[in-house]
Amino acid sequence: MNTQSIVERIREIMDDETLLQLKEELNSYHEADLADIFLELKPDERLKCFNLLDIEKAADLMEYLSPQIQVELLGDIDEELASRILTKLPHDAAADVLGDMEEDESEEYLDRLPHKFSEEVRELLTYNEDTAGGMMNPVVLTVNSDMSVKDVLNHIRTSATEDNMELYYVYVTDKQNHLMGVVSLRKLLTTPINQKVEDIMISDIVKLHIDDYSDYIIDEFMKYQYNALPVVDLYNRLKGMITWDDVHDLFEEETTEEIYQTSGISTVEVDEDEILSGSMTRAIRARTPWLFITLLGEFIAVHVTNSFENAVSLLPIVAAFMPLLAGLGGNIGTQSITLMVRGLSTGQVTMSTATHHILRETFIGATIGLIFGLLVMSATWGWKHSIGLGIVVGMAMMINMTMATIIGTLTPLCLKAVKVDPAVASGPVIATTIDVVGLFVYFSLVTLYLSHLQVL
Amino acid sequence: MNTQSIVERIREIMDDETLLQLKEELNSYHEADLADIFLELKPDERLKCFNLLDIEKAADLMEYLSPQIQVELLGDIDEELASRILTKLPHDAAADVLGDMEEDESEEYLDRLPHKFSEEVRELLTYNEDTAGGMMNPVVLTVNSDMSVKDVLNHIRTSATEDNMELYYVYVTDKQNHLMGVVSLRKLLTTPINQKVEDIMISDIVKLHIDDYSDYIIDEFMKYQYNALPVVDLYNRLKGMITWDDVHDLFEEETTEEIYQTSGISTVEVDEDEILSGSMTRAIRARTPWLFITLLGEFIAVHVTNSFENAVSLLPIVAAFMPLLAGLGGNIGTQSITLMVRGLSTGQVTMSTATHHILRETFIGATIGLIFGLLVMSATWGWKHSIGLGIVVGMAMMINMTMATIIGTLTPLCLKAVKVDPAVASGPVIATTIDVVGLFVYFSLVTLYLSHLQVL
Repeated sequence: MNTQSIVERIREIMDDETLLQLKEELNSYHEADLADIFLELKPDERLKCFNLLDIEKAADLMEYLSPQIQVELLGDIDEELASRILTKLPHDAAADVLGDMEEDESEEYLDRLPHKFSEEVRELLTYNEDTAGGMMNPVVLTVNSDMSVKDVLNHIRTSATEDNMELYYVYVTDKQNHLMGVVSLRKLLTTPINQKVEDIMISDIVKLHIDDYSDYIIDEFMKYQYNALPVVDLYNRLKGMITWDDVHDLFEEETTEEIYQTSGISTVEVDEDEILSGSMTRAIRARTPWLFITLLGEFIAVHVTNSFENAVSLLPIVAAFMPLLAGLGGNIGTQSITLMVRGLSTGQVTMSTATHHILRETFIGATIGLIFGLLVMSATWGWKHSIGLGIVVGMAMMINMTMATIIGTLTPLCLKAVKVDPAVASGPVIATTIDVVGLFVYFSLVTLYLSHLQVL
Repeated sequence: MNTQSIVERIREIMDDETLLQLKEELNSYHEADLADIFLELKPDERLKCFNLLDIEKAADLMEYLSPQIQVELLGDIDEELASRILTKLPHDAAADVLGDMEEDESEEYLDRLPHKFSEEVRELLTYNEDTAGGMMNPVVLTVNSDMSVKDVLNHIRTSATEDNMELYYVYVTDKQNHLMGVVSLRKLLTTPINQKVEDIMISDIVKLHIDDYSDYIIDEFMKYQYNALPVVDLYNRLKGMITWDDVHDLFEEETTEEIYQTSGISTVEVDEDEILSGSMTRAIRARTPWLFITLLGEFIAVHVTNSFENAVSLLPIVAAFMPLLAGLGGNIGTQSITLMVRGLSTGQVTMSTATHHILRETFIGATIGLIFGLLVMSATWGWKHSIGLGIVVGMAMMINMTMATIIGTLTPLCLKAVKVDPAVASGPVIATTIDVVGLFVYFSLVTLYLSHLQVL
């Protein structure tokens, strides 16, 4: 599907004002495709198109749109229609939309919605939106353990239709709504219909607690690979369930944060989705913390270099090699840090394999350092016809790259060992440390060389 | 669950040789937890534990283990047992395991397996493992469009049990196995049982083609958020299906690749999972290409600096500021490039919003540049008591940071415009470009300043 060309055609039809044709075309698309199309349209075009959608389609589309566009559209359309669309959404999606509105606006909608629905959504809104409680869908199909498969199938047929209920597993609860077991639809469909639920249910259940945070929820989904997990409260009472498509957006957000962190963009105070398109001030706030730390660190590098002022003025060419050393040291150090942080995050690196990884990285760093040291030595020798200078620069390069690899490997592992998130060891800080140490090593070698030439 | 302490307890039980207790304990864990435990165990401990697992549990565990450990375990256990475990796996998982073995070894296994199963697995092995054909499970439940819901439910009850079949949707095909429609289990369970399948099936199907590559498959799953997608051949004949848990590992791999790329680790020739734990030579091969390009780039920076040799020897302090300028320019440039590459990958940045982002980033870069320029100017002035030098360094800083932001923003967008993957614009290259341009600007300002002081 080429979104761009569809958008152009839609604009043409809009201009011709053949609305019936536009309506037909729009309603024929899959809601996920419509979401892509809506992203490309201008706000007034979006509103025009949205008003042409069937109400079911509009509700389906809602779930694929970004929060900004959801709120924008609901605010612009007729309030009666907006309420009807909200009622068609699963509870968790409705709570998400309402949670993104101003409070008085969302209150107004909640008052208009059917009582039972609005009560349930109100409860969802009381939970932190980053926890299982804020993410779950409270409408879950439950059965008793003494029901037969046949009873369960009848129960599904009569009750699942009404609430636009998501259905992957059937949860078995007792009279006080305590979670006792879970049965997959697959199991229900392949078991003799007279068998009792308690004989086929799994009672050793992977479940989420209502206060679990999003990163834990993602880890559980990634680890167990279920399509849905039940959410319980402190007393093991079933409160709702989370399906993998709820987690999927979260997962993308977490990945973005991880990538931002390695590049020194801080997501501590600023939401990850505001950095690209929110207010400028917030974007600047997200970007300056690590830059500021780099500034302080690099001032140390300035001092180190300045303390070798004599050497620089005697042999100004040595200054020219500084960016070369810093650049390559920074790069190879960033590689190591990235490998460790990512490895710790995916589980490929664990504390029990840490020693192995440290030795391995050191060996790799030394080997690459040797290769690049020799390259730089030869190039410098050939260029300046001074083997002495070549040796100094080459040796500095080798030591610098090896050291950068070791620093880049050790830092995340040490952070992990003291239970700090290794991802805070972002590239910029390591690069600065490597600058300081590397320049010190380099200028020490230069001074040795100059004293050897007896000019110092 | 604390894997570490469980592993310690397991080791204790192993030492006591109370195997019955160990067997009971191991079989009580969820297979995903067992996979974590096995990752921590040494190879000989792993083998010992694996032999104690019930065959069903062993097969379930298989799917959660990494390819290396799968092959290691199957190679070490009794061949007869290995074949039995393989037969319990879904076809796609069995094909994955066999595909990771040496060819003569996998041939031996294929000959031992039941004929039908081995034929189907053999067919999977003929597809490229990065395509839908290589990933799909060929065992799919199909029904005819004129069957009633009741017929379908009976059909599921008799046929889904035998093949360890995954079941999310029922696919409707004609006599030549052409894909006509799809019905979800949910729909089957909530529709009156006398209704015909053709009346409830969705015929506008999101489907994958057998030659589709993994990155396209991930995009389709992320976009449409289905739990499973059917795979068809050129003639729309149903060949199999892919479930989201197959895609989930792929997605993690793709994320790792994206993160590696921004840090200048090349995954073009070397598989992403070999870089941390494969052969050293391959790891070095993955890490050197961008380092080598950085080397060439930084040699230009060396030349630029060297051409201002005069200025450096007259005023050696100017050399000391080089790492400061390069460090901060590199950092802010990397931030911009990361934001653009990630934004293009998640769809937050599109070509139609490109101009907006360029202007926004430029403004942010200039603002941060101004702040840091003033900071650096004041610090330098205070330190060296020379307002002239302060102005030169501060101005260079401001220009450098603004420029770095613009280069970091434009490069990925330009690559995207000419249809090259923007992710190839990795941090190291931009940092080097910024070094070269930044140093040139800086030394030009220094020269101007020196000529103003009339020392040049």
